[in-house]
Amino acid sequence: MDEVLVNGVRSTCIAPSDRGLQYGDGLFETMRVHDGTIPLWTRHWRRLADGCRRLGLEGVEEAVLREETHRLAAVVARGIVKLVITRGSGGRGYRPPLEARPTRIVAAHASPHHPASHWRQGVALRLCRIRLGRNPALAGMKHLNRLEQVLARHEWDDPAIAEALMQDDRGRVVCGTMTNLFTVTGGRLVTPPVDECGVAGVMRALLLEWTGAQVHALNLEDLAAAEELLLCNAVIGIWPVRAVERQEYPIGKITLGLMERLRQAGLSGEV
Amino acid sequence: MDEVLVNGVRSTCIAPSDRGLQYGDGLFETMRVHDGTIPLWTRHWRRLADGCRRLGLEGVEEAVLREETHRLAAVVARGIVKLVITRGSGGRGYRPPLEARPTRIVAAHASPHHPASHWRQGVALRLCRIRLGRNPALAGMKHLNRLEQVLARHEWDDPAIAEALMQDDRGRVVCGTMTNLFTVTGGRLVTPPVDECGVAGVMRALLLEWTGAQVHALNLEDLAAAEELLLCNAVIGIWPVRAVERQEYPIGKITLGLMERLRQAGLSGEV
Repeated sequence: MDEVLVNGVRSTCIAPSDRGLQYGDGLFETMRVHDGTIPLWTRHWRRLADGCRRLGLEGVEEAVLREETHRLAAVVARGIVKLVITRGSGGRGYRPPLEARPTRIVAAHASPHHPASHWRQGVALRLCRIRLGRNPALAGMKHLNRLEQVLARHEWDDPAIAEALMQDDRGRVVCGTMTNLFTVTGGRLVTPPVDECGVAGVMRALLLEWTGAQVHALNLEDLAAAEELLLCNAVIGIWPVRAVERQEYPIGKITLGLMERLRQAGLSGEV
Repeated sequence: MDEVLVNGVRSTCIAPSDRGLQYGDGLFETMRVHDGTIPLWTRHWRRLADGCRRLGLEGVEEAVLREETHRLAAVVARGIVKLVITRGSGGRGYRPPLEARPTRIVAAHASPHHPASHWRQGVALRLCRIRLGRNPALAGMKHLNRLEQVLARHEWDDPAIAEALMQDDRGRVVCGTMTNLFTVTGGRLVTPPVDECGVAGVMRALLLEWTGAQVHALNLEDLAAAEELLLCNAVIGIWPVRAVERQEYPIGKITLGLMERLRQAGLSGEV
């Protein structure tokens, strides 16, 4: 990490007793920095605030987080700011402390090194072996319990594979390891629900608002029948999908149109 | 925490980039210390080693961990030593680094403050509202993704309720938030499987070996029909259950016999 603020102060130190470490008791946001600012800040904050409410994590204030994240955004100019909020230290075992004092960790990073071809020629995907467990109490949140994604990303090291799709235990295709998925079928955009597993991505929410895409479950047959596939997140914007395992997809008009619109809005992570 | 070793050295500092914090990418063991030693060390180590293998977490050596945990056990004399192993820092996003350098955190604590009546008169339980998601790839391990348990423990603060039972999404009763469950029905011990969710507790494994208890799924009807219920973990040993919600249970002979056997083996956490 290039520079890290812990509770607003430059630091390289988190207490070993922090519940973020002990239990994954917290949330995070990975935010694209452009021209020294965070274009999607308000959406990131809203999702984080929703997660805090669901976890019963109090005492997290937007003004403080906005200042700290933007302080580092100004430094990094172009790259990533990652924000981690934990329930801090304390409590007895799993039981949260009555008055938690959350820990704020804000870190600035360079942009991840994705080749330009990921945007221009599209990405090749694999299907993960590991399945996503379902739990409505945790679904949608960008919480710190991410072992499923770690194990999924551990399944391959072929650099020709940019990302992998994850299915739930019933075989429904939910998302990538770090991206949300949209398909185009019959000219209409569809994205899977994230109310049982998966993360409610900030870019997914934006694309849903822009396009009125349908939210419904997708299985492998739906994927095979799709005319276009795209992946998205707040850092990359959109990657067109050119292949999933052996099936190839064209980079279609709807995907290209959305990429252009993101570009014009200054929200594409394209390099 | 009273005293903490990080990678063998007294420390109050974990790197903010540690994957244990960022993703819950690690494992832990909570071990009872008695007379300055850890009676169940070998079992804890074996479970940890199995978890490391399943997570692809290499470079964790028993001799090092045994020395560090026992160094603190000698200091605390009677209490708890908690060991956390993470995949350390590094890697790109969820992707683990090619050569991980695990972080070892060993912390000594006083014994938790449970009243003696928990062992003598038994404990009253509630049923959790939150359900356990199922994922065979993670089940059984004592990994750092524990938000389900945190939210479960957040459901009540009545000190008269010692623990709560957790069901999976199909309504099967799996475990307590920090304990495993055994029932006695028709004079026979039964404990639920932990191959889809739940933790394969060290004390559960010991009781299984001692008793040849059956492992099969339990639903609420099975619970209602049980003659005795007990909870166990490596720190408390066994708590007899005297009530689950409004249903009462006697403290029966089989439970009392196992508690006596634990006492004689020096493995009861009774105060």
